[in-house]
Parts: sequence; structure tokens; C-alpha cells
Amino acid sequence: MMTIRRMNSQSANFEQELNQLLAWESVNDHNLQQTVLDIIARVRQAGDSAVLDYTQRFDQVSASHVTNLMIQPAQLAAAYHQLTEDKRSALATAAERIRHYHSKQKQESWQYREVDGTVLGQQITPLDRVGIYVPGGKASYPSSVLMNAIPAKVAGVPEVIMCVPTPRGEVNNLVLAAAHLAGVDKVFTIGGAQAVAALAYGTQTIPKVDKIVGPGNSYVATAKRLVFGQVGIDMIAGPSEILIYCDGKTHPDWIAMDLFSQAEHDEEAQAILISEDAAYLDAVQQSLDKLLPTLERAVIARASLAGRGALIHVQNEVEAIALINRIAPEHLELSVENPEALLPHIRHAGAIFMGRYTPEALGDYCAGPNHVLPTSGTARFSSPLGVYDFQKRSSIIYCSAQGASHLAEVASVLARGESLTAHARSAEYRMIAEE
Amino acid sequence: MMTIRRMNSQSANFEQELNQLLAWESVNDHNLQQTVLDIIARVRQAGDSAVLDYTQRFDQVSASHVTNLMIQPAQLAAAYHQLTEDKRSALATAAERIRHYHSKQKQESWQYREVDGTVLGQQITPLDRVGIYVPGGKASYPSSVLMNAIPAKVAGVPEVIMCVPTPRGEVNNLVLAAAHLAGVDKVFTIGGAQAVAALAYGTQTIPKVDKIVGPGNSYVATAKRLVFGQVGIDMIAGPSEILIYCDGKTHPDWIAMDLFSQAEHDEEAQAILISEDAAYLDAVQQSLDKLLPTLERAVIARASLAGRGALIHVQNEVEAIALINRIAPEHLELSVENPEALLPHIRHAGAIFMGRYTPEALGDYCAGPNHVLPTSGTARFSSPLGVYDFQKRSSIIYCSAQGASHLAEVASVLARGESLTAHARSAEYRMIAEE
Repeated sequence: MMTIRRMNSQSANFEQELNQLLAWESVNDHNLQQTVLDIIARVRQAGDSAVLDYTQRFDQVSASHVTNLMIQPAQLAAAYHQLTEDKRSALATAAERIRHYHSKQKQESWQYREVDGTVLGQQITPLDRVGIYVPGGKASYPSSVLMNAIPAKVAGVPEVIMCVPTPRGEVNNLVLAAAHLAGVDKVFTIGGAQAVAALAYGTQTIPKVDKIVGPGNSYVATAKRLVFGQVGIDMIAGPSEILIYCDGKTHPDWIAMDLFSQAEHDEEAQAILISEDAAYLDAVQQSLDKLLPTLERAVIARASLAGRGALIHVQNEVEAIALINRIAPEHLELSVENPEALLPHIRHAGAIFMGRYTPEALGDYCAGPNHVLPTSGTARFSSPLGVYDFQKRSSIIYCSAQGASHLAEVASVLARGESLTAHARSAEYRMIAEE
Repeated sequence: MMTIRRMNSQSANFEQELNQLLAWESVNDHNLQQTVLDIIARVRQAGDSAVLDYTQRFDQVSASHVTNLMIQPAQLAAAYHQLTEDKRSALATAAERIRHYHSKQKQESWQYREVDGTVLGQQITPLDRVGIYVPGGKASYPSSVLMNAIPAKVAGVPEVIMCVPTPRGEVNNLVLAAAHLAGVDKVFTIGGAQAVAALAYGTQTIPKVDKIVGPGNSYVATAKRLVFGQVGIDMIAGPSEILIYCDGKTHPDWIAMDLFSQAEHDEEAQAILISEDAAYLDAVQQSLDKLLPTLERAVIARASLAGRGALIHVQNEVEAIALINRIAPEHLELSVENPEALLPHIRHAGAIFMGRYTPEALGDYCAGPNHVLPTSGTARFSSPLGVYDFQKRSSIIYCSAQGASHLAEVASVLARGESLTAHARSAEYRMIAEE
């Protein structure tokens, strides 16, 4: 039988058990940090030659020049056209749906004029150049390329540069095809902290970007943290998680497979089911037992559910909602009859999958919304990756002579209150002498 | 005569000089980091008693309980009503204008329905609880309280908690009055890394928040960096800067005082003027010489301009625009006849002050836009503090049975392409058998 933690909101130490279940803190590995600092320093100093050296050492790929590590646009297009018809069509449908959904997120500049003629507003512009990191090897996901590159392109970013390592020369054609579909402008087959450093500071061949997004291993995550400030970064992601709330009326096999779809990612992934119906939790447990042996990634899924999974019995909907907001899950599945009634009560979740026909997997690939979502409770204060992450704002202030005179009186008093008299005098020069 | 660097875009080593001028990197002080890590660990472990201990030690303020370090709402209101009429009125005008401007930034939830009934969108909600850090002592600015707290309140954040240290018991009444006007819910007179740790993790008395914003010294900045992930934070700000582009037709005293208003902040602040008119740069230099002795903060302004200021001669408008975008200034003043013609070419700036009647000081206090702006070139990828920093988004996906069936076909192909077969099977359960 499969081991998965059973919990009950009525038990005396529920809060403590819950804290244990959710505990996850990114490790602050001092040695790792030092290694990454060294890599960044060498890339800043030696540029291309450091990148070539690390790529040879870590990926067993040698090249005489970084230009030889570029994949040409024609090669990306060829990768796309070489796909089988079903894959090409699925990828194209996903890209089109992602593009359409994200186009709704694009923000426009705005301004308003006051009665005295003063104009205030914000000018919204795309970033100039963005770097997208895509892991190599087995964790190389074409869906990630679409989810990271398309919002940047919808935002209007003129140049999107992708870095993807090709350990021992292994190239993933689906990833290249996705880059073609997403409109990626340049691809370099480099990875690790050296790719992040090259994107952040630029080398002779690799252009310096303004923001770096995309998932990666601990070297990549550490490097992103360290170059933050020099460039923008997306969130540093923790393990992926799902929280399913079910009223007990969805087929237990469906819910079991939804839990497995999260658990198959890796051993640290977290899958939790909550329900008011204890018998239903038993039924899902039976489905888990039954289906586990049929999974290709059974070993990973078993370890994930045993280590970090849970089936939680709650008393009622009010408790369920409180638990959802307490956990602030990355993925929330509301597998209930009337999910719309719950929606206004959900304050924190990366993505909300509503109803029995909306498993997370549809959102992971092709529904349209982004699959890069805040993990580990960070949905309390952050949002899915979106077009807004590739746009930025400049405040606009354009005072008329009359408006300036009026504002200068206010600014002068406040600046003098803060003992910043040059501020006050700069404002006062713009005052119109009263008649 | 006042020393300020003169530069010319035509000089052979201009690019190198420019890099030197702009060079600024936040120091990564290992000892400081260790001290702050210790403070955070002690506050996490001992809660209130650690906060009391540090407050006694660093601020020479002793209290028997953290509740004694709370300032009651009645006391905030009293501080406001005790202000002189001109200060109260100036503060109220500033608050009202800031509130009005920021209300234009509030984002609303959106969704759309596809032909098969599937609904997609985003639910936008305020953060639950926000912490605002306000420095104590001489750098305690009431305008900062308004600029940080009002956007949170406009976003709908139910609970805004302010921490402001009161070294040796010194309380700044203007700061308390600003907190009253801005609608701050709770004030604790604690500061430093211990305040940041208390807000991030909560203590017996101080509630845990979801995001911490506001300026602070190197302890505060380091603590914010370290608790990032546990809570959200705003940008870690570098020294403040202004870039003024003038066509040579604004009174040189005005521009000199605008430069001084930036330079008087601190020795590391940066003030740069660019113009096509070399004679005008001479005139501004003369105004600087003439006005410097009349400044209250002459020593600071002189050091700032000598160390980090510059008057730069450019050949033409095209060069000026390129330089602006290269620098991506926090504050950009376009002191020219027709600033609107330039606006579409400005790609990177925190705030753009347009025309001769819009000195930065008006924006610092009361024009309406936020004065918390991206520094050190980070305007390339980040934005002014705004209501959007206190809202977050949850993706909404609600598939109809028909919509799910269609999407499941696409997801199944892509999931199998990534060898994530539980994802594929979770999707396939939702497929409707074809007739």
C-alpha cells in the first residue's frame, strides 16, 4: 500500500503537523555560493573565453568560439518543421492560446490633465532585451520555453535571448521548435551559472540583457540571486505543489491522477487533497494504490507522496477555505460542483483550476495562462509570470506654470519640514509672484 | 570655485569616463551579513524578548513589553492635529494628490469566455498585511510614509504596519501625523534588522506581514535581502540620482538648484546635467559657485557634486537621448521647450519631469506620483512603487466539459513529449469519447 500522510483538522496538534508538512526553506549553501561567485567573477573578467572553458568543463562541449555555440534561426525553424504532425500541431495550438491569453495582460500608458493644465501619468514600455534560461538534459521542457518567451514577445521585447545547455552535445528538438514558435531571437547552447553571468554582464559575443527568467538547478538559482540588481530576475522557485479541494463527487481515479501529475515532477514536489468527506479520502487512497504501479515515474511519485503528500479531512467549507488561504498554494484545484461560489473567498493562489474538468495538466501546457507560478506560499505576495513582468513604467509629471506655482507652495513647506532647503528653493523658483 | 566634473561626448575616452561616473555597486559586506543573520535568527527564536533586547541596546529605549513600543491611533491623530496650520494643510494636500494619482493604478480582475464555455482570466486581490519601514532620527521623512503607505491602502491592504525606531526616545511628530493621514493601522517604535525580522516572521506581539517596503540603512537593506522569499520586498535602493537635460534656455540658477536638491541628500547622491550648449554649462557652473555658500547643507552638496556630479556637453538631441537611455536615471528632468517631442524616445527612467516648471522637488513631495523609484540604472527593468506592488494575481481556468476535452488532446501530446505521463493521463481522463 502507498504511504501518504492522513490528517484531520480536528486533531489537537493539527497546526503543528501542518507546519511540518509545509516546511520548506531554500538552502543557503555557502560553498555553492562561493563557487558561483567565482564563476560570475571569471565570466565578468574573461568573457567569451571563460564561457568556452566552463562549457567544455561542465557540459563536455568544446568550441573554438562562442559563435559556434549559437543556434541559427534556420536551425530552429528546421527543428519545428521536422516535428511529427501531432506534435507540431499541439505545440502550435499551445503557443497560440498562450499568446492570446497573455495579450489581455498588456498594459498601456495612461495620463490625465488637471484643470490648471498639469499632466500626470505613466509611460509603459517593454524591456529592451531579456534572457531566458532553459535547463538541458532530462528536465528540458518545451512548454517552459513557450511560457517564458511568449509573454516577453507580447510585451514587445525586441530581443529575447535563450540559453540552453547541451550536455555531451544532446540537443532537444522540441525545445528548439518551441523557441522558433515563441519568436526567440538568439539561442546559445550554454548553461549553468556561466550562462547567467554572461547574460547579466555580457561578453564579447553574448549580449547583456535587462532581465533573466526561467527555471534552473541550484547553480542557476544561486547565480540569479547574485546578479539580481544588475539585472531583473523572476522569482526563485521552490518545489512545485498542488492543493486539491474536492467535495467527494469527482471520480477518485481522476483526483488520484491529478495528485500523481504533481508528484511525478520530483521527490520534493507536494500534492495535498482536502475534503469534508472522509470516505472519499479513503477512496482516493485506494485509487492511488491501484494506479501507482501503472505509472512510468512511480518511484518518484511514491517518494513525493510519502515524503510531502497529505490527505486532509476538514469539517466544512469554511475550514477548507481557511486552509487554502493559509497554504497559498501554487496550484489550487477546486474539484467541486460550484467553484464560482468559492472564488471570491480565495485570497491566495498562483492559479485556480475550477471544476471537475480542469486538471492542472491543462494549465501546464495549453489552456493559456502561465505555468510559471509563485511557490511555497509566495502567492501571498506574488503573481504568475506575465506580460507585466516584461514591461516597466516611468512616471510622467508635466506641470503647467500655474500648477507648478501651486505645488511649489506645498513642496516648500514639506521640504523645509524635512530640513531639505535646496529642495524647497528649487520648488520656490517656480512660484509665480502673487499680484 | 566648486569642483564638478566636465565631460564631452566627443572626447576619446568618453565611454570610459562615463562608466567611471556611473559605477556604483552595493557592497556585499560579509561581517554585516553575519550580524544581520544572527539578529534574524534570534528574533525568529525568541520573538518579543529579542526585539526588546535589541531595541534597548541599539536605540537606548527600554520597555517591559513590546506593547509598550506601540503608538496608539489616538496618538497619531493627536500628532496630526498638533501640527501648525501650514504643515497640516501641506501634508493633507500631498496625501490627497498621492491618493488620487495612485487610484488610477488600481488593477481589476478580468476574465473572458471562449465559444466552448471555457473561462480564463485573472483574479486580482490585495495583500493581506504589509510592513512599512521608516528610518528614525535625521533621515526620518514624513513624505516617505505617505509614498509607501498610501499605495498599499489604495490597493485595499487591510492592515498596514509601520516600524519606526525612536533612537534615545526621539519621536518625529510629522512622521506620526503622516502615518495618521495615510491610514497606517499599527505603529511600533522599533527599527533596524530586528524590525525587519519581526515583520517577516512575526513575534508574540508583532504580526507577520506579507511584504516589507521602505528605505533604511545598511542593516535594514541587508535584512530585507535576507528575508526575501519569506516575504516580498521592494527594490533595495542605491543612492538617489537626477539627470537633467536642458536646452540652455532655463534660468541657470533654477537648474543649479535642481542639481543641489539632489546633491543635498547625501555624499553618494548623483546629479548630472547634459546640454548641447557649452556656454550654458559654464553659466550653470557659475550659478553653482554662487549658490553653494547659501545652502544649509553645503558641505554634503559640495561633496556629492565633486565626487559624483557631472556637466556633460553633447553634440545634439540624438546624443542626449542615447545618453539618457544608457543611464536609465531614477529622476529625469527634461528642461526643454517641447518635452513632449522627446517623450516617445525615452525608454528608461524612473520618473520624467517635463518642462522648465517641473523640478524634481515637486514630485518628491506632492505632485502625486511616487517618489520611490528605481535607482542605479534599474529603471531598465523596474518601475516606481505603486498600487500594483500591493496587489497580486491568481490565474483563473474554468474548463467546460467540451473545452477540457479539446485541451486534453493537446496537453496529452505535449506531456508525453516531455515524458510526464501522469500529466497526460490526468488530462486524458477529461476527454469525451468520440461518437
